[in-house]
Amino acid sequence: MTSRLIYLPLGGAGEIGMNAYVYGYGPKDAERLIVVDLGVTFPDMDGTPGVDLILPDISWLEERKAMIDGIFITHAHEDHVGAVGHYWERLGAPVYARKFTANIAARKLEEHGHPDGVLTVVGPYPETRDVGPFKVSFVPISHSIPESSGLIIDTPEGRVIHSGDFKIDKTPVVGEAFDESLWAEIAKDGVKALVCDSTNIFFKAEGRSEASIAGEVEELMRDAPGMVVATTFASNIARLKTLAVAADKAGRSVCLLGRAMRRMVEAATETGLLKDFPSMVSPEDAQNIPREHLLLLVTGSQGERRAASAQLANGKYLGLTMKEGDTFLFSSKTIPGNERGVIRIMNQFSEMGVDVVEDDTRYHVSGHANRPDLERMHEIIQPQILVPMHGEHRHLREHVKIGNSKGLTGIVAVNGMMIDLSGNAPTVAEYIETGRTYLDGTVQIGALDGIVRERIKMALNGHVIVTLIVDENDEPLGEPWVEVVGLAETGTSNAALVEVLEEDLGQFLMRAEGKTLRDDVKLEKELRSIARRTTQAEIGKKPEVAVIVSRLG
Amino acid sequence: MTSRLIYLPLGGAGEIGMNAYVYGYGPKDAERLIVVDLGVTFPDMDGTPGVDLILPDISWLEERKAMIDGIFITHAHEDHVGAVGHYWERLGAPVYARKFTANIAARKLEEHGHPDGVLTVVGPYPETRDVGPFKVSFVPISHSIPESSGLIIDTPEGRVIHSGDFKIDKTPVVGEAFDESLWAEIAKDGVKALVCDSTNIFFKAEGRSEASIAGEVEELMRDAPGMVVATTFASNIARLKTLAVAADKAGRSVCLLGRAMRRMVEAATETGLLKDFPSMVSPEDAQNIPREHLLLLVTGSQGERRAASAQLANGKYLGLTMKEGDTFLFSSKTIPGNERGVIRIMNQFSEMGVDVVEDDTRYHVSGHANRPDLERMHEIIQPQILVPMHGEHRHLREHVKIGNSKGLTGIVAVNGMMIDLSGNAPTVAEYIETGRTYLDGTVQIGALDGIVRERIKMALNGHVIVTLIVDENDEPLGEPWVEVVGLAETGTSNAALVEVLEEDLGQFLMRAEGKTLRDDVKLEKELRSIARRTTQAEIGKKPEVAVIVSRLG
Repeated sequence: MTSRLIYLPLGGAGEIGMNAYVYGYGPKDAERLIVVDLGVTFPDMDGTPGVDLILPDISWLEERKAMIDGIFITHAHEDHVGAVGHYWERLGAPVYARKFTANIAARKLEEHGHPDGVLTVVGPYPETRDVGPFKVSFVPISHSIPESSGLIIDTPEGRVIHSGDFKIDKTPVVGEAFDESLWAEIAKDGVKALVCDSTNIFFKAEGRSEASIAGEVEELMRDAPGMVVATTFASNIARLKTLAVAADKAGRSVCLLGRAMRRMVEAATETGLLKDFPSMVSPEDAQNIPREHLLLLVTGSQGERRAASAQLANGKYLGLTMKEGDTFLFSSKTIPGNERGVIRIMNQFSEMGVDVVEDDTRYHVSGHANRPDLERMHEIIQPQILVPMHGEHRHLREHVKIGNSKGLTGIVAVNGMMIDLSGNAPTVAEYIETGRTYLDGTVQIGALDGIVRERIKMALNGHVIVTLIVDENDEPLGEPWVEVVGLAETGTSNAALVEVLEEDLGQFLMRAEGKTLRDDVKLEKELRSIARRTTQAEIGKKPEVAVIVSRLG
Repeated sequence: MTSRLIYLPLGGAGEIGMNAYVYGYGPKDAERLIVVDLGVTFPDMDGTPGVDLILPDISWLEERKAMIDGIFITHAHEDHVGAVGHYWERLGAPVYARKFTANIAARKLEEHGHPDGVLTVVGPYPETRDVGPFKVSFVPISHSIPESSGLIIDTPEGRVIHSGDFKIDKTPVVGEAFDESLWAEIAKDGVKALVCDSTNIFFKAEGRSEASIAGEVEELMRDAPGMVVATTFASNIARLKTLAVAADKAGRSVCLLGRAMRRMVEAATETGLLKDFPSMVSPEDAQNIPREHLLLLVTGSQGERRAASAQLANGKYLGLTMKEGDTFLFSSKTIPGNERGVIRIMNQFSEMGVDVVEDDTRYHVSGHANRPDLERMHEIIQPQILVPMHGEHRHLREHVKIGNSKGLTGIVAVNGMMIDLSGNAPTVAEYIETGRTYLDGTVQIGALDGIVRERIKMALNGHVIVTLIVDENDEPLGEPWVEVVGLAETGTSNAALVEVLEEDLGQFLMRAEGKTLRDDVKLEKELRSIARRTTQAEIGKKPEVAVIVSRLG
């Protein structure tokens, strides 16, 4: 039987976040598999209230556990590594990553009590791992976290380049620069497929280097009259360095606030990446430093409610407070969907008299390649096939269009589309059922289980609880009892809603026939329907209704 | 007793939306009052799930109903006129507006069954209304809806200019241009206070005219290969005209989809504003027109779930469908907080092969004055006092700072801050309790009533219902019964969550003392606490719990 090379995104293609890609090689339905990245995405009140974390549905992989030869993590962002702890047991394969990424992954595996030895630290290319039919190397590539890597995946069908998240940055402040000649060398014998980051495909200007903002940041640190508090993604070690070095030059001591940031700096220190980083002071010591000589680096660039930025916006945090004349700098970009949270803290700071600086061109550069940079990457790699990933549908589609316009063959492959890369042109081999898994409390539930949907419905419509006792003779014992949660107390008839409900339900029961009273399903259906109708008439809302009939019989 | 001139924002100062401003003149606590604007703001899933509309809390005004001499509506945007129907009865004063605004307001008053004669149509300045101690005129000012007006409010303490929402547009396509010499004339004898729009204070470039986008829009209409569907705010009659005229020039018939848009065009037609507007075709006729000769103007620029844009994104709407080669144009800007909805439909269109054009500089101009335009307005009016309004705290604060830098006296006055404008400098006279009222179904509830909070808690935590029957001897009759809504079915012990709960609650009841079983409050508290503890242990969530104890005694 002939073998084939397949690519299957389980997450990250058709969305930004929750990356999980599968490559396979072998006879149809008996391919040996590797997984690239196992990330998470984050819940929101709109669609996933109360959910703790969103993970890709890996049922397809789990059913093929024995076929998985390895899990490769390109870098330590949560949308690439966040599910490793939750899922390792279900996949059971060795995990490969570079040193810094492995440091972060190890913490996650540890939290879930997984054994040591799961994790293999791999050095950069030309170091190569043979896993099943694949030879895989990590090629340093610039991004907004240290030691990001693109992968070379050599297969019997040819070389695949999985770009990982990347930008073209020749002066990245921390870590390895984008090395154009290295990539050209890697691509020189031909590349079967480039599976490529699409995040910034709609940005038409050439991307800017991390080093380019240092001057502006330094000026701000020098000119700000009071304390400066700056936020960025905790994992953006280069940015932390840019900010800290600027502060140092402006005579400011640096203090770090926020668990995620401390953890990242710890990992960067342990792996030897934090060279020439100014020394830091503790929050306790910071309290004794004149505010014009202080920079706080804090978590919460997306307005997260529990992060250090929000704590400072609410008042005191670890003994530190902001006040009139201080400056709060967003050295970050607000991710679509997070605007409300960010605006909330901006206004809280405004009320304190704090000047908020939010300018994502002067004090921030993106970690992803813009359109011209992606085009440059296409030119360097010159792949036979372009497969955009790490994007919503519109990003993937635009990326293919741009590839096509330069003569590349491309395919929009969204989660669940298994692509056969074996031939000269990519074909859709199969559609796999994919989806999302929610971590809800300590339990994993399916996105389509309806559990979260029930919660959303209660949030929109309120909840009415009807209880009724039926005696041994199938006669109602007393009146039905009603409680309401999340609904107005009184409506049009100016009596308490619960009383109107009890009255209407009582009336119905008085007239109800024996066969209705004997039939739980029928009885509950009728009571529910009356409860909804009455609530609608009273307050104009159709609530969720729970009916509980207790039979003494 | 000496009289004073007061200004009191009840909504719109400290937020963008829900505008409601009060001016008063007279002896302290016996001022005659006028209201400027009565707007609404819109709910979201984050903070107000299930709420239909958010209105300012007007309790303070209602208590002074007899003192209100008039309600003036500056323009017909929902955040200025949306509460008129809901609140008119509680305030009972005559409503003044210009013709187009009155047309919209009349529909709202009618919907609520308010009497004719409530509404007085006022012509533009120099027409003036004497209401109590005030003389008020509507001065045409450019904005993104026809007949927007700033108000001259002449008081015994001097002239107040209430800018309303505005931009400086000398070629506004529909309606009146910003007339600099008119405003200079109005201001020439001195202005006590300029109460001024702050929405775009953070935009540093000079604002652009509505006319400036016509060329780009025309080019798009000409070059697009298939059908063009364009969305903008329904009330932006000038934009509808810009789009329709461009379509007409490009040989496209124009078809309008969406109730809000039809209503606005109807109002504009009735009031004689829609001159030189290309004739339109019905959705039925549109089906027979070749798609390259068609422009659909549709509602839903903010990705609203039920608007025409979302319906088209979901498939068919009124017999019309979009397909590969068509273009969807956002001639609008996404309001912060609405990104998710907009991105959702963008991706749906992408899946259909529709090209989405979203570029808020080429195909959209804002309806609000940018910073240089606001500075120009300050220069023209040269007020004694600058009072920023229509902004979040950060906008108001920035506006005052900019005024100060040019030598103006300004004050940040947020909702509930009553400002005494009588003296040479503004002072805070009093803090009034203000807030938000929710229209929830057909009922008005207070934002702090806790009703919506209960719904949010159920959405985050799920709901457990415990029912128990206690017999005449205060002994549990049978086992407790548990139902769960919005929670995982099984947890750590691999048994059904409801069964584990019933087991734990049953265990407790077997050991419970008589005095606990006799005491409803104590019993419910214990059962709730066990239900929470067990759920937490099983699935890691602390649910909301309703306990219903039925006593046969």
